[in-house]
Amino acid sequence: MTDSRASRHDNRTEAIMRAALDLALEVGYAKLSIEAVATRAGVGKHTVYRRWSSRGLLFLDAVLSLNTGGLSHPNTGDVVADLRETMNKAVNLLAQPPWGPLYRALIGEAQHDPEVAAALNRRFIEPQTADTLARLKAAKDQGEIAPDFDLGLAFDILSGPLYYRLLITQQPITDDYIDRVLQAVFAGMSPRPQTR
Amino acid sequence: MTDSRASRHDNRTEAIMRAALDLALEVGYAKLSIEAVATRAGVGKHTVYRRWSSRGLLFLDAVLSLNTGGLSHPNTGDVVADLRETMNKAVNLLAQPPWGPLYRALIGEAQHDPEVAAALNRRFIEPQTADTLARLKAAKDQGEIAPDFDLGLAFDILSGPLYYRLLITQQPITDDYIDRVLQAVFAGMSPRPQTR
Repeated sequence: MTDSRASRHDNRTEAIMRAALDLALEVGYAKLSIEAVATRAGVGKHTVYRRWSSRGLLFLDAVLSLNTGGLSHPNTGDVVADLRETMNKAVNLLAQPPWGPLYRALIGEAQHDPEVAAALNRRFIEPQTADTLARLKAAKDQGEIAPDFDLGLAFDILSGPLYYRLLITQQPITDDYIDRVLQAVFAGMSPRPQTR
Repeated sequence: MTDSRASRHDNRTEAIMRAALDLALEVGYAKLSIEAVATRAGVGKHTVYRRWSSRGLLFLDAVLSLNTGGLSHPNTGDVVADLRETMNKAVNLLAQPPWGPLYRALIGEAQHDPEVAAALNRRFIEPQTADTLARLKAAKDQGEIAPDFDLGLAFDILSGPLYYRLLITQQPITDDYIDRVLQAVFAGMSPRPQTR
């Protein structure tokens, strides 16, 4: 492609993703159709289908295009403070439109479409997990995490309660909730031996 | 209604729910239509709509009709063993058709339909949470759980990782995974003081 054709291609891709997000917020993802997206974006249906083989994969690209990638963990030497900061940031995104309802709709679609589920994991969940794991490994090396704690589970245990609230009980995920999760997960349920 | 009319009503309700489940397993929930359910059940569309105002609420009733209610916690005096038993039972249901894919599809629908989300919580999640909480309170009274552990979070922390795996990474939830979650959640991430 020449530069101007490539740029027109990018502009159309952008316009289609923007239309998908706008319509999902306006009418709900359940009622989103490729036809309506094409009309809103001012392109033909085939232009959409040439780029995406399904509504779910278009929606995935559109939602992930909103992620500014700013969810990597700092390392200040205090692992609880660093996890809290990243979890607060993630939740402040999730707590409000547009990201919250769109992300829930995307996970909803992943329950029906295995391609969406696989791509969501590969492109969003796995990099996030790897970043958290690296931060936790550093904390273990510094003695902030018990030497025998199963780090392979840490991401599931830290983010599981947040997803549970987002997807199941649908109660608000507040900064206070995150503090309580961190406190509970670090302390553990078992009684601790008296230290004096 | 006379007895025979009431019984015909029940039979039709059963047949419609059965048809919804069968079709969801055959074609996927995303492609399920009220028309197809009515045809499969041998009733008119209006007969379905007289009982359920939406496809989601019909599907919710149908999926919950499969739940045999056998997920309450025993109390043998060993809280970890009792939690393990109940979690293993739940996961053995979830790990295979029909319950697993149907439950995922139901949670998927709850992301798009607030009525489904509210009813799922009221009829399934809340009773389960209350049962787990009662078992954990007894354990706390017996000194098996730290006196200051935040029990209000316990269900989120124990079941969050399972839902995370079911809905997000979609990796298998094995008995070994449950053992690891219980071990990690009871021990906590913080290093423990040396006991000798």
